Amino acid sequence: MSVSPALPRIDDEARAALFTDARTTYSFADTPVDDETLTGIWELARWAPTAANMQPLRVLYVRTPEGKERLLPHLDEGNRPKSASAPVVAVLAVDNRFHEHIPHILPIRAELKDHFDSEPAQREGITSFNGPLQAGYFILAVRAFGLAAGPMAGFDSAAIDKEFFSDSDWHSILVVNIGHPAGAAEFDRMPRLALEHVLGWA
Amino acid sequence: MSVSPALPRIDDEARAALFTDARTTYSFADTPVDDETLTGIWELARWAPTAANMQPLRVLYVRTPEGKERLLPHLDEGNRPKSASAPVVAVLAVDNRFHEHIPHILPIRAELKDHFDSEPAQREGITSFNGPLQAGYFILAVRAFGLAAGPMAGFDSAAIDKEFFSDSDWHSILVVNIGHPAGAAEFDRMPRLALEHVLGWA
Repeated sequence: MSVSPALPRIDDEARAALFTDARTTYSFADTPVDDETLTGIWELARWAPTAANMQPLRVLYVRTPEGKERLLPHLDEGNRPKSASAPVVAVLAVDNRFHEHIPHILPIRAELKDHFDSEPAQREGITSFNGPLQAGYFILAVRAFGLAAGPMAGFDSAAIDKEFFSDSDWHSILVVNIGHPAGAAEFDRMPRLALEHVLGWA
Repeated sequence: MSVSPALPRIDDEARAALFTDARTTYSFADTPVDDETLTGIWELARWAPTAANMQPLRVLYVRTPEGKERLLPHLDEGNRPKSASAPVVAVLAVDNRFHEHIPHILPIRAELKDHFDSEPAQREGITSFNGPLQAGYFILAVRAFGLAAGPMAGFDSAAIDKEFFSDSDWHSILVVNIGHPAGAAEFDRMPRLALEHVLGWA
Protein backbone atom coordinates (compact mmCIF):
# COMPACT_ATOMS: atom_id res chain seq x y z
CA MET A 1 0.00 0.00 0.00
CA SER A 2 1.28 3.44 -0.85
CA VAL A 3 1.88 5.89 1.94
CA SER A 4 -0.87 8.43 2.19
CA PRO A 5 -0.65 11.66 4.19
CA ALA A 6 -3.76 11.90 6.36
CA LEU A 7 -5.94 14.89 5.58
CA PRO A 8 -7.80 16.60 8.43
CA ARG A 9 -11.54 16.01 8.86
CA ILE A 10 -13.85 18.68 10.20
CA ASP A 11 -15.60 18.01 13.51
CA ASP A 12 -19.33 17.72 14.24
CA GLU A 13 -19.57 21.34 15.32
CA ALA A 14 -18.17 22.59 12.02
CA ARG A 15 -20.42 20.19 10.08
CA ALA A 16 -23.41 21.54 11.97
CA ALA A 17 -22.42 25.16 11.28
CA LEU A 18 -22.01 24.59 7.56
CA PHE A 19 -24.49 21.86 6.69
CA THR A 20 -26.69 20.08 9.18
CA ASP A 21 -27.86 22.90 11.47
CA ALA A 22 -27.56 25.89 9.13
CA ARG A 23 -30.79 27.42 7.88
CA THR A 24 -31.63 29.78 5.05
CA THR A 25 -32.57 33.09 6.68
CA TYR A 26 -35.22 35.58 5.53
CA SER A 27 -35.31 38.00 8.44
CA PHE A 28 -32.19 39.60 9.85
CA ALA A 29 -31.15 41.39 13.05
CA ASP A 30 -29.73 44.90 12.60
CA THR A 31 -26.32 43.74 13.86
CA PRO A 32 -23.86 45.10 11.29
CA VAL A 33 -21.37 43.03 9.30
CA ASP A 34 -18.08 44.80 8.57
CA ASP A 35 -16.29 44.96 5.22
CA GLU A 36 -13.33 43.04 6.60
CA THR A 37 -15.59 40.04 7.24
CA LEU A 38 -17.06 40.32 3.74
CA THR A 39 -13.58 40.33 2.24
CA GLY A 40 -12.74 37.34 4.44
CA ILE A 41 -15.69 35.38 3.05
CA TRP A 42 -14.28 35.75 -0.44
CA GLU A 43 -10.75 34.96 0.75
CA LEU A 44 -12.10 31.54 1.81
CA ALA A 45 -14.44 30.83 -1.09
CA ARG A 46 -11.87 31.67 -3.78
CA TRP A 47 -9.68 28.65 -2.96
CA ALA A 48 -12.23 25.99 -3.90
CA PRO A 49 -11.68 24.59 -7.41
CA THR A 50 -13.04 25.74 -10.78
CA ALA A 51 -12.59 24.27 -14.25
CA ALA A 52 -9.07 25.11 -15.46
CA ASN A 53 -8.88 27.65 -12.60
CA MET A 54 -11.09 30.07 -14.56
CA GLN A 55 -12.83 31.56 -11.45
CA PRO A 56 -15.61 33.41 -13.30
CA LEU A 57 -17.59 34.44 -10.19
CA ARG A 58 -17.69 38.07 -9.06
CA VAL A 59 -19.30 39.56 -5.95
CA LEU A 60 -20.92 42.97 -5.47
CA TYR A 61 -21.48 43.66 -1.77
CA VAL A 62 -24.38 46.09 -1.30
CA ARG A 63 -24.40 47.44 2.26
CA THR A 64 -25.03 51.22 2.14
CA PRO A 65 -28.52 52.78 2.20
CA GLU A 66 -27.81 54.26 -1.26
CA GLY A 67 -26.78 50.88 -2.62
CA LYS A 68 -29.86 49.19 -1.16
CA GLU A 69 -32.07 51.88 -2.71
CA ARG A 70 -30.60 51.12 -6.12
CA LEU A 71 -30.94 47.34 -5.67
CA LEU A 72 -34.32 46.73 -4.03
CA PRO A 73 -36.59 47.83 -6.89
CA HIS A 74 -35.05 45.11 -9.07
CA LEU A 75 -35.90 42.28 -6.68
CA ASP A 76 -39.21 40.42 -6.85
CA GLU A 77 -41.65 42.25 -4.61
CA GLY A 78 -41.86 39.42 -2.08
CA ASN A 79 -38.07 39.41 -1.75
CA ARG A 80 -37.65 43.14 -1.02
CA PRO A 81 -38.41 42.98 2.73
CA LYS A 82 -35.90 40.15 3.11
CA SER A 83 -33.08 42.15 1.50
CA ALA A 84 -34.19 45.35 3.25
CA SER A 85 -33.68 43.62 6.61
CA ALA A 86 -30.25 42.22 5.73
CA PRO A 87 -27.20 44.35 6.65
CA VAL A 88 -25.51 43.12 3.47
CA VAL A 89 -26.83 41.86 0.16
CA ALA A 90 -24.32 40.11 -2.08
CA VAL A 91 -25.07 40.15 -5.80
CA LEU A 92 -23.23 37.18 -7.29
CA ALA A 93 -22.34 37.62 -10.95
CA VAL A 94 -20.28 35.95 -13.65
CA ASP A 95 -17.74 37.88 -15.68
CA ASN A 96 -18.17 37.04 -19.35
CA ARG A 97 -14.66 38.39 -19.92
CA PHE A 98 -13.05 36.07 -17.35
CA HIS A 99 -10.64 34.96 -20.07
CA GLU A 100 -8.78 38.30 -19.92
CA HIS A 101 -7.12 36.94 -16.76
CA ILE A 102 -5.91 33.65 -18.26
CA PRO A 103 -2.22 34.67 -18.61
CA HIS A 104 -2.23 35.19 -14.83
CA ILE A 105 -4.52 32.37 -13.62
CA LEU A 106 -3.50 29.64 -16.11
CA PRO A 107 -0.02 30.68 -17.28
CA ILE A 108 0.73 27.22 -18.72
CA ARG A 109 -2.08 27.75 -21.24
CA ALA A 110 -1.88 31.51 -21.76
CA GLU A 111 -2.92 31.10 -25.41
CA LEU A 112 -6.43 30.15 -24.24
CA LYS A 113 -7.06 33.86 -23.72
CA ASP A 114 -7.16 34.44 -27.46
CA HIS A 115 -9.03 31.20 -28.06
CA PHE A 116 -11.85 32.13 -25.66
CA ASP A 117 -11.93 35.67 -27.03
CA SER A 118 -13.27 34.32 -30.33
CA GLU A 119 -15.51 31.65 -28.72
CA PRO A 120 -18.28 33.32 -26.72
CA ALA A 121 -20.33 30.09 -26.64
CA GLN A 122 -17.44 28.30 -24.93
CA ARG A 123 -17.16 31.16 -22.44
CA GLU A 124 -20.86 30.75 -21.70
CA GLY A 125 -20.21 27.04 -21.06
CA ILE A 126 -17.59 27.99 -18.44
CA THR A 127 -19.64 30.69 -16.73
CA SER A 128 -22.95 28.78 -16.67
CA PHE A 129 -21.37 25.85 -14.84
CA ASN A 130 -18.63 27.44 -12.73
CA GLY A 131 -20.68 30.46 -11.63
CA PRO A 132 -23.23 28.35 -9.71
CA LEU A 133 -20.43 26.01 -8.55
CA GLN A 134 -18.63 28.96 -6.95
CA ALA A 135 -21.96 30.25 -5.58
CA GLY A 136 -22.16 26.98 -3.62
CA TYR A 137 -18.70 27.58 -2.18
CA PHE A 138 -19.66 31.19 -1.38
CA ILE A 139 -22.80 30.24 0.58
CA LEU A 140 -20.82 27.81 2.74
CA ALA A 141 -18.06 30.41 3.24
CA VAL A 142 -20.67 32.86 4.56
CA ARG A 143 -21.72 30.22 7.09
CA ALA A 144 -18.07 29.58 8.01
CA PHE A 145 -18.04 33.12 9.49
CA GLY A 146 -21.05 32.46 11.74
CA LEU A 147 -23.35 34.38 9.42
CA ALA A 148 -26.64 33.32 7.88
CA ALA A 149 -27.11 33.29 4.12
CA GLY A 150 -30.41 33.82 2.34
CA PRO A 151 -29.98 33.03 -1.36
CA MET A 152 -32.76 34.25 -3.67
CA ALA A 153 -33.34 33.56 -7.36
CA GLY A 154 -36.26 36.02 -7.73
CA PHE A 155 -34.89 39.24 -9.26
CA ASP A 156 -34.63 41.09 -12.56
CA SER A 157 -31.13 40.14 -13.67
CA ALA A 158 -31.02 42.45 -16.70
CA ALA A 159 -32.13 45.43 -14.59
CA ILE A 160 -29.49 44.74 -11.92
CA ASP A 161 -26.82 44.42 -14.60
CA LYS A 162 -27.89 47.75 -16.11
CA GLU A 163 -27.92 49.46 -12.72
CA PHE A 164 -24.59 48.16 -11.40
CA PHE A 165 -22.58 46.52 -14.16
CA SER A 166 -23.08 48.74 -17.22
CA ASP A 167 -19.34 49.45 -17.52
CA SER A 168 -18.35 45.76 -17.38
CA ASP A 169 -19.44 42.37 -18.67
CA TRP A 170 -20.65 41.07 -15.32
CA HIS A 171 -24.05 39.34 -15.28
CA SER A 172 -25.95 38.72 -12.05
CA ILE A 173 -26.88 35.10 -11.28
CA LEU A 174 -27.90 35.04 -7.59
CA VAL A 175 -28.71 37.44 -4.77
CA VAL A 176 -27.60 36.36 -1.28
CA ASN A 177 -28.77 38.18 1.84
CA ILE A 178 -26.13 38.05 4.60
CA GLY A 179 -26.31 38.81 8.31
CA HIS A 180 -27.31 37.54 11.73
CA PRO A 181 -30.78 35.99 11.97
CA ALA A 182 -33.45 38.08 13.71
CA GLY A 183 -34.61 35.03 15.68
CA ALA A 184 -35.22 31.33 15.35
CA ALA A 185 -36.23 30.04 11.92
CA GLU A 186 -39.89 30.74 11.24
CA PHE A 187 -40.84 27.39 9.80
CA ASP A 188 -39.69 23.80 9.82
CA ARG A 189 -36.99 22.73 7.48
CA MET A 190 -38.29 21.30 4.26
CA PRO A 191 -37.53 17.61 3.71
CA ARG A 192 -34.56 16.32 1.78
CA LEU A 193 -34.92 13.46 -0.68
CA ALA A 194 -34.51 9.93 0.65
CA LEU A 195 -31.14 8.38 -0.16
CA GLU A 196 -32.61 5.85 -2.59
CA HIS A 197 -33.78 8.67 -4.87
CA VAL A 198 -30.34 10.28 -5.01
CA LEU A 199 -27.56 7.71 -4.66
CA GLY A 200 -26.59 5.07 -7.20
CA TRP A 201 -23.84 2.46 -6.81
CA ALA A 202 -21.65 0.71 -9.36
CA MET B 1 -31.13 46.46 18.40
CA SER B 2 -32.99 43.22 17.95
CA VAL B 3 -31.75 40.17 19.80
CA SER B 4 -29.80 37.86 17.56
CA PRO B 5 -28.87 34.28 18.42
CA ALA B 6 -25.15 33.84 17.77
CA LEU B 7 -24.37 31.30 15.08
CA PRO B 8 -21.22 29.21 15.43
CA ARG B 9 -18.17 30.01 13.30
CA ILE B 10 -15.81 27.32 12.07
CA ASP B 11 -12.21 27.43 13.31
CA ASP B 12 -8.99 27.89 11.33
CA GLU B 13 -8.40 24.14 11.16
CA ALA B 14 -11.78 23.50 9.54
CA ARG B 15 -11.28 26.44 7.17
CA ALA B 16 -7.93 24.98 6.14
CA ALA B 17 -9.43 21.51 5.58
CA LEU B 18 -12.24 22.84 3.40
CA PHE B 19 -10.80 25.88 1.67
CA THR B 20 -7.35 27.28 2.27
CA ASP B 21 -5.16 24.14 2.47
CA ALA B 22 -7.24 21.70 0.41
CA ARG B 23 -5.90 20.74 -3.00
CA THR B 24 -7.44 19.13 -6.04
CA THR B 25 -5.92 15.63 -6.27
CA TYR B 26 -5.01 13.69 -9.40
CA SER B 27 -3.14 10.71 -7.97
CA PHE B 28 -4.58 8.60 -5.17
CA ALA B 29 -3.28 6.10 -2.62
CA ASP B 30 -4.93 2.66 -2.70
CA THR B 31 -6.41 3.21 0.77
CA PRO B 32 -10.08 2.23 0.37
CA VAL B 33 -13.09 4.46 1.13
CA ASP B 34 -16.09 2.59 2.51
CA ASP B 35 -19.70 3.00 1.37
CA GLU B 36 -20.74 4.33 4.76
CA THR B 37 -18.40 7.31 4.29
CA LEU B 38 -19.76 7.90 0.78
CA THR B 39 -23.31 7.90 2.14
CA GLY B 40 -22.16 10.28 4.88
CA ILE B 41 -20.81 12.74 2.31
CA TRP B 42 -24.25 13.00 0.75
CA GLU B 43 -25.92 13.21 4.17
CA LEU B 44 -23.93 16.43 4.71
CA ALA B 45 -24.17 17.93 1.23
CA ARG B 46 -27.93 17.46 0.95
CA TRP B 47 -28.70 20.05 3.65
CA ALA B 48 -27.29 23.05 1.80
CA PRO B 49 -29.96 25.10 0.04
CA THR B 50 -31.39 24.81 -3.48
CA ALA B 51 -33.97 26.94 -5.29
CA ALA B 52 -37.41 26.07 -3.88
CA ASN B 53 -35.81 22.98 -2.31
CA MET B 54 -35.76 21.23 -5.70
CA GLN B 55 -32.50 19.27 -5.03
CA PRO B 56 -31.90 18.10 -8.63
CA LEU B 57 -28.43 16.61 -8.03
CA ARG B 58 -27.89 12.84 -8.08
CA VAL B 59 -24.72 10.87 -7.33
CA LEU B 60 -23.52 7.60 -8.82
CA TYR B 61 -20.63 6.18 -6.79
CA VAL B 62 -18.43 3.97 -8.96
CA ARG B 63 -16.08 1.89 -6.78
CA THR B 64 -16.03 -1.69 -8.10
CA PRO B 65 -13.61 -2.94 -10.77
CA GLU B 66 -16.61 -3.72 -12.99
CA GLY B 67 -18.00 -0.22 -12.54
CA LYS B 68 -14.63 1.38 -13.26
CA GLU B 69 -14.32 -0.72 -16.42
CA ARG B 70 -17.66 0.62 -17.65
CA LEU B 71 -16.79 4.23 -16.77
CA LEU B 72 -13.17 4.75 -17.79
CA PRO B 73 -13.58 4.48 -21.59
CA HIS B 74 -15.96 7.47 -21.47
CA LEU B 75 -13.46 9.80 -19.80
CA ASP B 76 -11.02 11.92 -21.79
CA GLU B 77 -7.88 9.87 -22.29
CA GLY B 78 -5.75 12.11 -20.07
CA ASN B 79 -8.26 11.73 -17.24
CA ARG B 80 -8.39 7.91 -17.23
CA PRO B 81 -5.26 7.33 -15.10
CA LYS B 82 -6.57 9.80 -12.52
CA SER B 83 -9.88 7.95 -12.13
CA ALA B 84 -8.16 4.57 -12.36
CA SER B 85 -6.06 5.48 -9.30
CA ALA B 86 -9.03 6.75 -7.26
CA PRO B 87 -10.78 4.22 -4.98
CA VAL B 88 -14.09 5.95 -5.77
CA VAL B 89 -15.29 7.99 -8.72
CA ALA B 90 -18.50 9.95 -8.19
CA VAL B 91 -20.50 10.77 -11.30
CA LEU B 92 -22.61 13.81 -10.46
CA ALA B 93 -25.79 14.08 -12.50
CA VAL B 94 -28.98 16.11 -12.61
CA ASP B 95 -32.38 14.43 -12.69
CA ASN B 96 -34.52 16.06 -15.37
CA ARG B 97 -37.56 14.57 -13.64
CA PHE B 98 -36.76 16.13 -10.26
CA HIS B 99 -40.28 17.59 -10.26
CA GLU B 100 -41.81 14.15 -9.60
CA HIS B 101 -40.72 14.67 -5.97
CA ILE B 102 -42.35 18.09 -5.47
CA PRO B 103 -45.34 16.84 -3.42
CA HIS B 104 -42.78 15.54 -0.90
CA ILE B 105 -40.06 18.24 -1.02
CA LEU B 106 -42.28 21.32 -1.49
CA PRO B 107 -45.69 20.26 -0.14
CA ILE B 108 -46.92 23.87 0.11
CA ARG B 109 -46.64 24.12 -3.69
CA ALA B 110 -47.47 20.55 -4.71
CA GLU B 111 -49.19 21.83 -7.87
CA LEU B 112 -45.77 22.79 -9.27
CA LYS B 113 -45.27 19.13 -10.11
CA ASP B 114 -47.83 19.35 -12.92
CA HIS B 115 -46.61 22.80 -13.93
CA PHE B 116 -43.01 21.63 -14.40
CA ASP B 117 -44.19 18.48 -16.15
CA SER B 118 -45.35 20.61 -19.07
CA GLU B 119 -42.43 23.07 -18.92
CA PRO B 120 -39.19 21.24 -19.79
CA ALA B 121 -37.36 24.55 -20.44
CA GLN B 122 -38.12 25.68 -16.89
CA ARG B 123 -36.87 22.35 -15.57
CA GLU B 124 -33.65 22.91 -17.51
CA GLY B 125 -33.36 26.33 -15.83
CA ILE B 126 -33.54 24.63 -12.42
CA THR B 127 -31.11 21.81 -13.20
CA SER B 128 -28.52 23.94 -15.02
CA PHE B 129 -28.16 26.28 -12.03
CA ASN B 130 -28.82 24.05 -9.03
CA GLY B 131 -26.85 21.06 -10.31
CA PRO B 132 -23.51 22.92 -10.28
CA LEU B 133 -24.53 24.71 -7.05
CA GLN B 134 -24.99 21.35 -5.33
CA ALA B 135 -21.76 20.09 -6.94
CA GLY B 136 -19.98 22.87 -5.01
CA TYR B 137 -21.55 21.69 -1.77
CA PHE B 138 -20.62 18.10 -2.62
CA ILE B 139 -16.92 18.86 -3.21
CA LEU B 140 -16.67 20.61 0.16
CA ALA B 141 -18.54 17.74 1.86
CA VAL B 142 -15.95 15.30 0.47
CA ARG B 143 -13.24 17.42 2.06
CA ALA B 144 -15.18 17.53 5.35
CA PHE B 145 -14.51 13.78 5.65
CA GLY B 146 -10.74 14.20 5.30
CA LEU B 147 -10.83 13.02 1.70
CA ALA B 148 -9.41 14.65 -1.40
CA ALA B 149 -11.63 15.52 -4.35
CA GLY B 150 -10.52 15.66 -7.96
CA PRO B 151 -13.31 17.17 -10.07
CA MET B 152 -12.97 16.72 -13.86
CA ALA B 153 -15.02 18.20 -16.68
CA GLY B 154 -13.40 16.14 -19.45
CA PHE B 155 -15.70 13.22 -20.26
CA ASP B 156 -18.31 12.09 -22.77
CA SER B 157 -21.52 12.94 -20.95
CA ALA B 158 -23.87 11.32 -23.48
CA ALA B 159 -21.88 8.08 -23.39
CA ILE B 160 -21.89 7.96 -19.58
CA ASP B 161 -25.63 8.61 -19.54
CA LYS B 162 -26.18 5.78 -22.02
CA GLU B 163 -23.97 3.40 -20.04
CA PHE B 164 -25.37 4.11 -16.57
CA PHE B 165 -28.59 6.12 -16.77
CA SER B 166 -30.51 4.64 -19.71
CA ASP B 167 -33.46 3.69 -17.51
CA SER B 168 -33.77 7.17 -15.94
CA ASP B 169 -33.59 10.83 -16.89
CA TRP B 170 -30.30 11.50 -15.11
CA HIS B 171 -27.67 13.48 -17.04
CA SER B 172 -24.02 13.56 -15.96
CA ILE B 173 -22.52 17.01 -15.29
CA LEU B 174 -19.25 16.37 -13.42
CA VAL B 175 -16.92 13.49 -12.51
CA VAL B 176 -15.25 13.71 -9.08
CA ASN B 177 -12.42 11.38 -8.10
CA ILE B 178 -12.42 10.70 -4.35
CA GLY B 179 -9.82 9.19 -2.05
CA HIS B 180 -6.65 9.80 -0.08
CA PRO B 181 -3.84 11.55 -1.97
CA ALA B 182 -0.87 9.37 -3.02
CA GLY B 183 1.55 12.03 -1.81
CA ALA B 184 2.08 15.76 -1.68
CA ALA B 185 0.58 17.79 -4.51
CA GLU B 186 2.72 17.58 -7.61
CA PHE B 187 2.70 21.23 -8.56
CA ASP B 188 2.19 24.62 -6.99
CA ARG B 189 -1.28 25.93 -6.53
CA MET B 190 -2.43 28.11 -9.38
CA PRO B 191 -3.05 31.75 -8.46
CA ARG B 192 -6.41 33.17 -7.50
CA LEU B 193 -7.59 36.51 -8.85
CA ALA B 194 -6.68 39.62 -6.90
CA LEU B 195 -9.53 41.02 -4.83
CA GLU B 196 -9.92 44.13 -6.99
CA HIS B 197 -10.88 41.96 -9.97
CA VAL B 198 -13.60 40.13 -8.05
CA LEU B 199 -15.15 42.32 -5.35
CA GLY B 200 -17.37 45.34 -5.91
CA TRP B 201 -18.87 47.56 -3.19
CA ALA B 202 -22.06 49.62 -3.12
